[in-house]
Amino acid sequence: MAAETQSETSRAFHGLIHDNHMWGLWELASQMTAHPTPKAIPYMWRWSLFERILAVAGEAVPIGEERRALQLFNPGMDGRWATTNTLVGAVQMLLAGETARAHRHSPTAIRFITEGTGAYTAVEGERIYMKPGDLVLTPNWTWHDHGNETKERVVWLDGLDIPLVLSLDAMFFQLYDTVQVPLTKPNNESQRVHGHASLSPTWVKEKPLSSPLLIYGWEETEAALAATRDELGSPFDGIALDYTHPQTGGPLLPTMTCRIQMLRPREHTQAHRHTGSAVYQVVRGKGETIIDGQRFVWEKGDIIALPSWAVHEHANRSASEEAILFSIQDTPVLEKLGLNREEAYAEDGGRQKVTATFEG
Amino acid sequence: MAAETQSETSRAFHGLIHDNHMWGLWELASQMTAHPTPKAIPYMWRWSLFERILAVAGEAVPIGEERRALQLFNPGMDGRWATTNTLVGAVQMLLAGETARAHRHSPTAIRFITEGTGAYTAVEGERIYMKPGDLVLTPNWTWHDHGNETKERVVWLDGLDIPLVLSLDAMFFQLYDTVQVPLTKPNNESQRVHGHASLSPTWVKEKPLSSPLLIYGWEETEAALAATRDELGSPFDGIALDYTHPQTGGPLLPTMTCRIQMLRPREHTQAHRHTGSAVYQVVRGKGETIIDGQRFVWEKGDIIALPSWAVHEHANRSASEEAILFSIQDTPVLEKLGLNREEAYAEDGGRQKVTATFEG
Amino acid sequence: MAAETQSETSRAFHGLIHDNHMWGLWELASQMTAHPTPKAIPYMWRWSLFERILAVAGEAVPIGEERRALQLFNPGMDGRWATTNTLVGAVQMLLAGETARAHRHSPTAIRFITEGTGAYTAVEGERIYMKPGDLVLTPNWTWHDHGNETKERVVWLDGLDIPLVLSLDAMFFQLYDTVQVPLTKPNNESQRVHGHASLSPTWVKEKPLSSPLLIYGWEETEAALAATRDELGSPFDGIALDYTHPQTGGPLLPTMTCRIQMLRPREHTQAHRHTGSAVYQVVRGKGETIIDGQRFVWEKGDIIALPSWAVHEHANRSASEEAILFSIQDTPVLEKLGLNREEAYAEDGGRQKVTATFEG
Amino acid sequence: MAAETQSETSRAFHGLIHDNHMWGLWELASQMTAHPTPKAIPYMWRWSLFERILAVAGEAVPIGEERRALQLFNPGMDGRWATTNTLVGAVQMLLAGETARAHRHSPTAIRFITEGTGAYTAVEGERIYMKPGDLVLTPNWTWHDHGNETKERVVWLDGLDIPLVLSLDAMFFQLYDTVQVPLTKPNNESQRVHGHASLSPTWVKEKPLSSPLLIYGWEETEAALAATRDELGSPFDGIALDYTHPQTGGPLLPTMTCRIQMLRPREHTQAHRHTGSAVYQVVRGKGETIIDGQRFVWEKGDIIALPSWAVHEHANRSASEEAILFSIQDTPVLEKLGLNREEAYAEDGGRQKVTATFEG
Repeated sequence: MAAETQSETSRAFHGLIHDNHMWGLWELASQMTAHPTPKAIPYMWRWSLFERILAVAGEAVPIGEERRALQLFNPGMDGRWATTNTLVGAVQMLLAGETARAHRHSPTAIRFITEGTGAYTAVEGERIYMKPGDLVLTPNWTWHDHGNETKERVVWLDGLDIPLVLSLDAMFFQLYDTVQVPLTKPNNESQRVHGHASLSPTWVKEKPLSSPLLIYGWEETEAALAATRDELGSPFDGIALDYTHPQTGGPLLPTMTCRIQMLRPREHTQAHRHTGSAVYQVVRGKGETIIDGQRFVWEKGDIIALPSWAVHEHANRSASEEAILFSIQDTPVLEKLGLNREEAYAEDGGRQKVTATFEG
Repeated sequence: MAAETQSETSRAFHGLIHDNHMWGLWELASQMTAHPTPKAIPYMWRWSLFERILAVAGEAVPIGEERRALQLFNPGMDGRWATTNTLVGAVQMLLAGETARAHRHSPTAIRFITEGTGAYTAVEGERIYMKPGDLVLTPNWTWHDHGNETKERVVWLDGLDIPLVLSLDAMFFQLYDTVQVPLTKPNNESQRVHGHASLSPTWVKEKPLSSPLLIYGWEETEAALAATRDELGSPFDGIALDYTHPQTGGPLLPTMTCRIQMLRPREHTQAHRHTGSAVYQVVRGKGETIIDGQRFVWEKGDIIALPSWAVHEHANRSASEEAILFSIQDTPVLEKLGLNREEAYAEDGGRQKVTATFEG
Repeated sequence: MAAETQSETSRAFHGLIHDNHMWGLWELASQMTAHPTPKAIPYMWRWSLFERILAVAGEAVPIGEERRALQLFNPGMDGRWATTNTLVGAVQMLLAGETARAHRHSPTAIRFITEGTGAYTAVEGERIYMKPGDLVLTPNWTWHDHGNETKERVVWLDGLDIPLVLSLDAMFFQLYDTVQVPLTKPNNESQRVHGHASLSPTWVKEKPLSSPLLIYGWEETEAALAATRDELGSPFDGIALDYTHPQTGGPLLPTMTCRIQMLRPREHTQAHRHTGSAVYQVVRGKGETIIDGQRFVWEKGDIIALPSWAVHEHANRSASEEAILFSIQDTPVLEKLGLNREEAYAEDGGRQKVTATFEG
Repeated sequence: MAAETQSETSRAFHGLIHDNHMWGLWELASQMTAHPTPKAIPYMWRWSLFERILAVAGEAVPIGEERRALQLFNPGMDGRWATTNTLVGAVQMLLAGETARAHRHSPTAIRFITEGTGAYTAVEGERIYMKPGDLVLTPNWTWHDHGNETKERVVWLDGLDIPLVLSLDAMFFQLYDTVQVPLTKPNNESQRVHGHASLSPTWVKEKPLSSPLLIYGWEETEAALAATRDELGSPFDGIALDYTHPQTGGPLLPTMTCRIQMLRPREHTQAHRHTGSAVYQVVRGKGETIIDGQRFVWEKGDIIALPSWAVHEHANRSASEEAILFSIQDTPVLEKLGLNREEAYAEDGGRQKVTATFEG
């Protein structure tokens, strides 16, 4: 066949298939990349910026039908509601006397408290009182509202799996009929029943997919970090502890791991990369995280987005103080679906060369 | 504060946050929909169309580095490589004497054979010979190639979880150094070792996440349908059987369920909806599927995309012949992540009113 | 203290504790043996013996309230109802026209058919028709009766976990009100629903601890042995296949593994020992099993008791014919309780020296 | 046939089978009892008795190759080393300066500390320092020794699954070469790493069948009882908490559940029975347990054996003080093997009539 004829045949053929909502695999092969190529980029939001914003947010945005929560949009993701491909981090503020009205949704949410003692999250009729460092859960499809009866503002990090749930076409949302769900349980009930290291109540028979323990208090978290401080820890993460589901010992939520990690004075971890993304917040100390060669210098409150498969390592810059990072990670998703993969960074003794510094 | 001042405050505030890659939750609430609102639409590709295309595809598209596979693009998804939000269906053809070169990828693939007896898929050094109705697996990250040593073309349905893997930023792809992976195992070895209803080899110790049985032969499938034909079955799916992982009894793949279902003469199922999407292919018979009130009249070979949460019911139009549907579904993903939800259609005795007919 | 005084003190002390139902650990240490020291001994019951007995059993023992089942008592176990420490093997015969009345019990039972085609076991209202080589289950606490509507006697091997259940103080037994349980299901229903290699009915939601498949037919078993005949197999057991629970892929019963194993012509396995006991029956062929140095020469129908931790190896004596052994083993018990241990026999190239031959 | 002849036939037949180590099922049916008929009886050993014995035990029994441990022999069990059919309770004493030499065994052991602060159990090279109320584990086949470097005697309850392991023919025992295993880990290491309510070390990859947490401290136990005191609790057991394996949330040991339970002032539980046996020790308070109609009036330190299937209920006799019971139970064995069964006592409003009082 003459080249021209063949070309015409091919043109007609492709016209036919495209008209019928088909594409040839040969036209798409570039999407089968050698390794993940996330649209999300490594990024950092500084706490000093949040301070500026929070100072005026109360005036600028009345608390209405929805929370006063600043959703972090990854600059690489074309305006998608997403801090990474699967996770959203946000900073939420409630002023003295405010309440955030009751709703429920199929995305799972966590709160990690940054500032203020004595506000509450109410989950399914149980109020959970919160203070800095506490981790509070609102599992998938549980009614919840928030209230601040103190004299000061409260601020926390929200973590949700909204992009994942949206990509799975599994979003459900519902407003409660009234502003708050009537209380049906004593305050902090879940902690009283399930918050014991090694003892489980024999009269509780249900084992929900999400942890029935709704608050993980900072005292216990800090004590666990202190107790394990002299262990070898992880070469990539230092003293990294995963919060667990008390009835299974596994991840506390079906879609997210929550993790607390301590970098000891001058500790500088080995670099690695893995499938799965994360959102970090600095709890204490000063240090830096190097992501794909770019240095992110951080301090308390800063929030960092880590895309999937990005090489990363952490360093505590202090010679005397600990640094502590909290994070949410989508690890359980990757593991359950057989898509988890991890690789130590082999070059240069396992540490990246810094080629840029994030200016924000 | 005067309204004008307040408005100015608000404008300045929103400018500040948007400049810093944040959006207020109050600006986004519309994305928290009451129920899933997939971009994917119900759609059908007719087999008669494929016949026209396949007749010229050999001439129009030489088999090169990539497969001659027609990827079905859901018309609602803006050109994304996706038949539903998580799944891709495609129709692949191999002419007499052709081979499709070896590669591997983190998406998982299945083949459901439509036409032609005696071509093979080779997986990790084992050739699996195929005939119509057979289901063949290429689990995540296994080397595989295809070959057709017969005198006739062979055609099959490909099913993959490409959109899911892309959305999880977990795509890995690799070409093998040569066209085909050297054979290291006898042909159809996995079937000989693992293909027995109730007997497992004691000397096999590994339990991979994906089924070690790589072919599910049509004889057994058809026999199972025949054996269960007089059971009550599922009100929504008739005699629906899930292919299983022989070592766990669960889904054969971590991200996809494969299902075969028989609608008995005149059987018309109840309607329901569930989170999770599917791609169906008609194996035998004539009938219709009603999706969100739209009637899809189908016959052998037709391929249908079912979005998440769409109400659907199936009907066999024949009074004497069975109808059989094969499908892939992302059920395991939804279940593992706690996002599965199902609802029977309550109105009109559980059957939808038909408001439109798909013309394609 | 003078030796005499001390001795007196000790005597008084021991008197005091013994009077109060206590013993000193120092008096008992000999029961903490270096390795298991079963009271059960290796033993064999020849089929020729059963032939003599069965020929007169019908006359000698009318079928009454209880089965005409010859329970095999391990000669080492002081008259306990036990073939090994946890298992009972028995040979049961039903003459033409007889029925064995309905009862249920907490011990689990299996039948492995030796002779006669067309008798049935009825389990929970479902008749299961049996032929030689079939494995039939009566899970723990299921109502069951047997009937023989044929013109010939039928004979099978019973396997039960009676000694285990007795030692756990968990024996329950109940006679049904009438001779037979009314039929509520089609014959062989469980096979129709669950007897498919790789396909599970989506409408069945229960997953019982014991297999819902109640018959494992000999054709499939023999076909699986034939298909795997050229595999390497197990060095200790040849082509050994475990019957599995179709919904879990694990052992078909919570307390017993059932196994079929083929020794190929002249195959002589390596010796090993493990915790857990077994009862074997020869299905086909001629060979020998060497247990703790003692040779047991066997042929079709012979039944062998293997105690825990006894070194054993199997050999097929024929140069042309296969030998096939069926067995029940208490492996799941040991594994679940963390008490499984296995050791290859290291001396003499992994084969024992024969020091005695069982004469029986 | 004449009756005489028939009787002769039967006699000959039975002689033949008995000579060949067989018995007819018809001769054994009485062992298939309607419900469990344990040989173990309900029994109690009073702490006042132990005080008398311990006061002289040091003089009467030097610490030698074996522990100074008083094994509790259930009076119903014909001298078997067994407190119930599966469990052994014992009281062990170590005088100031003594050590109990290193060994390991396939039975699993727990220690529940009664008296003395500061002695240790060393497990696999890690010393665990103990005080009253602590629970200490020595999982199956771990090297362990004990030492008392204090000035006072220490006393604890031993709990082991010796009868179970013996009945499964799975006993292994080994003395260590020297008196003590060299220390290879910091003291109380397992508690530092695994003793945190909700946080698990990411660098620990192994998940052993037995809990890697080797000590469950009394402070946490008491705090958990206090926190749950106002819950409804179990109708049969009051505020009953099971110690758990931190990596699975399940029983801490594959063969034994350990449980702590609080009876609130005047609390009198409902009666029930279940398969599975237990050994209780009173930790605090005064009360009674009624077992099969027999009243056991107890106080601190008393030890009670509860056989399988015995009806039992507990009562705190005090109007102001709590009573606390510790127990070991073989529940995991029954559950894993599908032999667990439980029944509320239906008569007399769920409380037994007392027909006897244990005098001991």
